[in-house]
Amino acid sequence: MSNILHDEKLETEVFFDNVREKANKAIIEALDSHDIGAAYELINSLHIADLADLLDKLSKDERERLFDLIRDSIDPLLLAEIRNVSIKEDIIKYLGTKKIAELICLLEMDDTVSVLVDLDESLKSSIIFHLDAVKKKELEELLAYPENSVGRIMHKNFVVAPEHWSVGETIDHIRKRGDLPHDFYKIFVIDTKYKPIAFVTLGALMHHPNHKLIKEVMETNLKVISTDLDQEEMSFFFKQYGYVSLPVVSKAGRLVGAVTIDDAVEVIEKEAEEDIMHMGGIHESDIHLNVLDIVTSRFPWLFINLLTASIVALVIKFFEGTIQNIIVLATLMPVVASLGGNAGTQTMTVSVVGLVSKDLTTLNYFRVILRQIFACALNGILMAVIGGIMIYLWNHDLSLSLIFALSIIVNFSLAGLFGSSIPILIHRIGLDPAIASPIFLTTLTDIFGFLTFLGLATLFLL
Amino acid sequence: MSNILHDEKLETEVFFDNVREKANKAIIEALDSHDIGAAYELINSLHIADLADLLDKLSKDERERLFDLIRDSIDPLLLAEIRNVSIKEDIIKYLGTKKIAELICLLEMDDTVSVLVDLDESLKSSIIFHLDAVKKKELEELLAYPENSVGRIMHKNFVVAPEHWSVGETIDHIRKRGDLPHDFYKIFVIDTKYKPIAFVTLGALMHHPNHKLIKEVMETNLKVISTDLDQEEMSFFFKQYGYVSLPVVSKAGRLVGAVTIDDAVEVIEKEAEEDIMHMGGIHESDIHLNVLDIVTSRFPWLFINLLTASIVALVIKFFEGTIQNIIVLATLMPVVASLGGNAGTQTMTVSVVGLVSKDLTTLNYFRVILRQIFACALNGILMAVIGGIMIYLWNHDLSLSLIFALSIIVNFSLAGLFGSSIPILIHRIGLDPAIASPIFLTTLTDIFGFLTFLGLATLFLL
Repeated sequence: MSNILHDEKLETEVFFDNVREKANKAIIEALDSHDIGAAYELINSLHIADLADLLDKLSKDERERLFDLIRDSIDPLLLAEIRNVSIKEDIIKYLGTKKIAELICLLEMDDTVSVLVDLDESLKSSIIFHLDAVKKKELEELLAYPENSVGRIMHKNFVVAPEHWSVGETIDHIRKRGDLPHDFYKIFVIDTKYKPIAFVTLGALMHHPNHKLIKEVMETNLKVISTDLDQEEMSFFFKQYGYVSLPVVSKAGRLVGAVTIDDAVEVIEKEAEEDIMHMGGIHESDIHLNVLDIVTSRFPWLFINLLTASIVALVIKFFEGTIQNIIVLATLMPVVASLGGNAGTQTMTVSVVGLVSKDLTTLNYFRVILRQIFACALNGILMAVIGGIMIYLWNHDLSLSLIFALSIIVNFSLAGLFGSSIPILIHRIGLDPAIASPIFLTTLTDIFGFLTFLGLATLFLL
Repeated sequence: MSNILHDEKLETEVFFDNVREKANKAIIEALDSHDIGAAYELINSLHIADLADLLDKLSKDERERLFDLIRDSIDPLLLAEIRNVSIKEDIIKYLGTKKIAELICLLEMDDTVSVLVDLDESLKSSIIFHLDAVKKKELEELLAYPENSVGRIMHKNFVVAPEHWSVGETIDHIRKRGDLPHDFYKIFVIDTKYKPIAFVTLGALMHHPNHKLIKEVMETNLKVISTDLDQEEMSFFFKQYGYVSLPVVSKAGRLVGAVTIDDAVEVIEKEAEEDIMHMGGIHESDIHLNVLDIVTSRFPWLFINLLTASIVALVIKFFEGTIQNIIVLATLMPVVASLGGNAGTQTMTVSVVGLVSKDLTTLNYFRVILRQIFACALNGILMAVIGGIMIYLWNHDLSLSLIFALSIIVNFSLAGLFGSSIPILIHRIGLDPAIASPIFLTTLTDIFGFLTFLGLATLFLL
């Protein structure tokens, strides 16, 4: 694995990027020039995760040539690493579901799920049909746990010891086991009912003399999570408390699995990407999708946006007379809307992230909202003064400047209020604040921005 | 630690939230009612990370009462966990820099840095002045590494073995060491020049019989990183290749430290939060800051926004005559701007995340940009048709509908182009695409949106 990286191991950031890119480029060149031998060599030296990424960057033609090369030596892990569903389905069709089922049987359960996830239903059931009985049963068990629950990603191979064992006995036991996970970190101490009650890190175990009892060296501040726990909540534990692994228990409290920090990393990464996507008005990254799938996934949000923009248009419609009389208002309207929208977005971003990271809770809702309103209002005053002066220099109309200034201050204060409280409200009713907040926020700042600006103009300038 | 959580250990997500909140509320009540005993009990049962979070949610009064309680038993780790700088500075002033320096001397280096980071310069140097000589030297060494480099966060206590040792010898060596890190995962195999050449996981070591030599059981596909590597790049390794720990080498290739996946988690979390904040138009989360600091940190972006909005206003100014004649244009302008802006933001979000995750590289720039333009154009056609019909039903003016439709299609295509290529260009010149893209993007979609809409109206409707 990863020899290309290894050879260049002392280089820093930029160079590493180049190494990865260079390796990819060399493979593409070899594929394009039909230099099978060179391509095969290069592909085999790639880390499986890099190979999965490369597939997404090849043309259809190059990809098929690559499939031909790796056909007989395909690493089952590759299937788990490919995130582009259509490429994954291409490989599955190319190799046939029977062969894929054989490969999957070599994978651990979490990787098995990664392969099957998002697949076309008929393809999925055809693969499952070809799985061996053991694997099929394991898969059924796993799918019985709720989606996004810890049960779906936990490992089954963990190491346990009863508290009456000695350190020496435990080490012997570990050393004799053939199926030991190569990267475990803790021994869970269990009671007679297989309930986890404490833990010993492998490092601590090694440190103590053989005659000591587990109960003398174990740490009892063990945190236990349930199979039904949401994965996002699980990853919060790892982030907040710096855990490296956690025991997973059934409803009855029996130890049934373990999750490790690398599982949490995947969840953290996925959740962070989801949040940023939702804030940007899309469901999930569509960089892997084809044009039509991008169009259909983005359409709903744009359509809602068309409707909310129509409401804003109705508000403006109400002031058509005013605008026609004082046409400079039309020029300044986008400034009012843009500034208010951005002030609101700044606040909303802080609130959404605060809710996700639990820095914003019922304990400080009120204080945070108040602080945000004040901060936005103060920035509104600054923008009102600067913008007001700019407008005065441009139009030499003091009342217009004052009306602009006043509406900016009002709009910023409201942006602070809406930006902080909308995510909280959406979170309270159990929805993801990242996905719904932007729609409501910009509609509201637009409506109130135009209402105050055009309303004040109608009152005082006409 | 964390007994409250432990007692409720079998409960799931929602309940856990309640437990944390309940504990916090109980502490606040105890502090408010001056029930010192109860407050002290409750605070001691909190995990240090939760206590740090709680401090940020207390009033100044409650906080001071809490300081009084924990004054003599303060856990030095608490200082490293507090992210709100003004609260951290309050504690430091309360305890005095001499006492703080004593506490810091008990911390590991990465936590020491966490305490000192962001502190007021005079406070920082006063604390450093009181540090003992050893700590001072360690700190100097660490600060010699570039900011955000791996050298700043690596651990120094790792375990090594030469390849000619046997498994038994290695286990004995580990067991005899007093200063063993309790949570290490790998033994690094070094050559005579202290250069890391391979590794053995602790699990694998335990698995093999005593007489085997390290060179027979070690894995040689070792990835090594340099002290100068950027932390973000380091966290990419952990994410991409699923590493649990990595050896860090000096420029000469000598093993000088190690980083583990929990260090990467912190970096991943920080980077993800930074990206989302930058996209939302702020430098970093200001939920912990006071009003004035929020104002000053957000002002620059809003000011730039005022300038870019002024450019947009100038574009509209050019068409004042047209708008005055066809006032309905003023009503529809925000619809054009809003839709184009959102189409662009969707694309931009995908590009920024793609660049960060390296799914978007020179190998597929062109294909991705092209696909995004097509996808946006197609959605533009859909919006043009729906919006055009809505406008026709409202105004019974076919030419207006057609002009709206045409400008939406043009604007969406440009949104696809700008949304995908602006982040790439900014990334190419070495800046963070998340921070600069939104400013350029909305300015451009506004300008081109109004130019096409008002321009076409001037050509065909006047």
